[in-house]
Amino acid sequence: MTSHSRVRVRYAETDQMGVVYHANYLVWMEIARVDYCRAIGLNYARMEAEDGVVIAVVDVKCRYLCPARFDDEVEIETCVLEVHSRMVHFGYEMRRMPDLKPLARGETKHMFLDRVTLLPTRLPAGHRPLFGLLK
Amino acid sequence: MTSHSRVRVRYAETDQMGVVYHANYLVWMEIARVDYCRAIGLNYARMEAEDGVVIAVVDVKCRYLCPARFDDEVEIETCVLEVHSRMVHFGYEMRRMPDLKPLARGETKHMFLDRVTLLPTRLPAGHRPLFGLLK
Amino acid sequence: MTSHSRVRVRYAETDQMGVVYHANYLVWMEIARVDYCRAIGLNYARMEAEDGVVIAVVDVKCRYLCPARFDDEVEIETCVLEVHSRMVHFGYEMRRMPDLKPLARGETKHMFLDRVTLLPTRLPAGHRPLFGLLK
Amino acid sequence: MTSHSRVRVRYAETDQMGVVYHANYLVWMEIARVDYCRAIGLNYARMEAEDGVVIAVVDVKCRYLCPARFDDEVEIETCVLEVHSRMVHFGYEMRRMPDLKPLARGETKHMFLDRVTLLPTRLPAGHRPLFGLLK
Repeated sequence: MTSHSRVRVRYAETDQMGVVYHANYLVWMEIARVDYCRAIGLNYARMEAEDGVVIAVVDVKCRYLCPARFDDEVEIETCVLEVHSRMVHFGYEMRRMPDLKPLARGETKHMFLDRVTLLPTRLPAGHRPLFGLLK
Repeated sequence: MTSHSRVRVRYAETDQMGVVYHANYLVWMEIARVDYCRAIGLNYARMEAEDGVVIAVVDVKCRYLCPARFDDEVEIETCVLEVHSRMVHFGYEMRRMPDLKPLARGETKHMFLDRVTLLPTRLPAGHRPLFGLLK
Repeated sequence: MTSHSRVRVRYAETDQMGVVYHANYLVWMEIARVDYCRAIGLNYARMEAEDGVVIAVVDVKCRYLCPARFDDEVEIETCVLEVHSRMVHFGYEMRRMPDLKPLARGETKHMFLDRVTLLPTRLPAGHRPLFGLLK
Repeated sequence: MTSHSRVRVRYAETDQMGVVYHANYLVWMEIARVDYCRAIGLNYARMEAEDGVVIAVVDVKCRYLCPARFDDEVEIETCVLEVHSRMVHFGYEMRRMPDLKPLARGETKHMFLDRVTLLPTRLPAGHRPLFGLLK
């Protein structure tokens, strides 16, 4: 299972080097992750509001291959590299469209946390099959 | 009563025009506003956590006079233009240091909201004298 | 002539009040402005690269009516309120979709600047008819 | 050689989880990196303007240990893990002050690029001794 997301580079995302500021790729990975969750049937906003569970980033990596520029259209391909009831690990490929030029590759690891206490919890049982987990 | 705050321009705040992206001046005004509140004895973070009152922006204006650049040191002078128990109106002057070149002028209007319901409320009575309000 | 743009609220755009941080509406107005220009046949990125003309914000106003939240879909309606060869003044209406709840109203004024010197210039003559200017 | 930088968490840096949005730690690392360069005698802004050399991020990692919150004071300790004439690798420790609670650990790798072409270049010879490089 992979999902595909699109963003168009905002002027606000550029810096004085004339390219996208590097921290913004993390924002794109998040957009892609929310889309991935939506694609498997998990509404992120609802999980936060109704189940009281947030998905906190605990680790992030990004390798920058080619700078993205203002008004570029970027495709982000997202997959799950590993998942447990307490943790999920995503991988991302970012490419410029339409020439498919690789822009960046990233990974993020996440823990499920209780929204109020911010202490570790488990992915709500009802949502586990969405990630292919048996229980 | 005026307060003075300092920010040094971050690389992240520039855009491909080579100057500070215009939305960041609103962030600086907020830093200055928090400093102003601290200066009169109002801890913003604590008011949110303990009194359950947030200060929501309802109106903002900014006039840009001269672009700020990466690594510039910027001073923000803040004052209260008007205040009621339900609303506060701040004014800001942003200047480059040390030459005092005017960079921007802004105003923000705020309502006090209940943190949970986000409905209008009043500035907690104990904090009103801080703004020179009798009650 | 009006144009319509859509953004979906990013998690990164929220703040601890649980709603969209107010400076992000300025970013949305810019996205809408770029779309407006594209709709009338003016490629913003190309004008910057080829004509060496940037469109700098000199004045911004925003009135916040109702907070937008994570994952909301927001429509921005954009129009030109006034235009000269040296200045353009845009107006924006932001609404939540699909219920059309008004979220915010904004205005921005812009000057055309030489990309290198950042001194005032005129909208390149070839682009003026796009804004309905005779010359 | 290590340098120490301080940032106070901005409201704008929080998200609806009530903590600092994860991409902002990359911005803090950059502030710390600019401070490190200043401490060894390398003016980042001037190198960009005068030598035409920019320091582009090619790789970033961040491990999040404890969430930072609005108004927290954060110290970033920065060191150089490795350096060549074409590449520099920084390490960062972020701690909450004054209790020294570890918040995050990060690393960034950078290449020196020509500001105009964005092609790889070398750290200008005059700056190499600043990083302890012989030539």
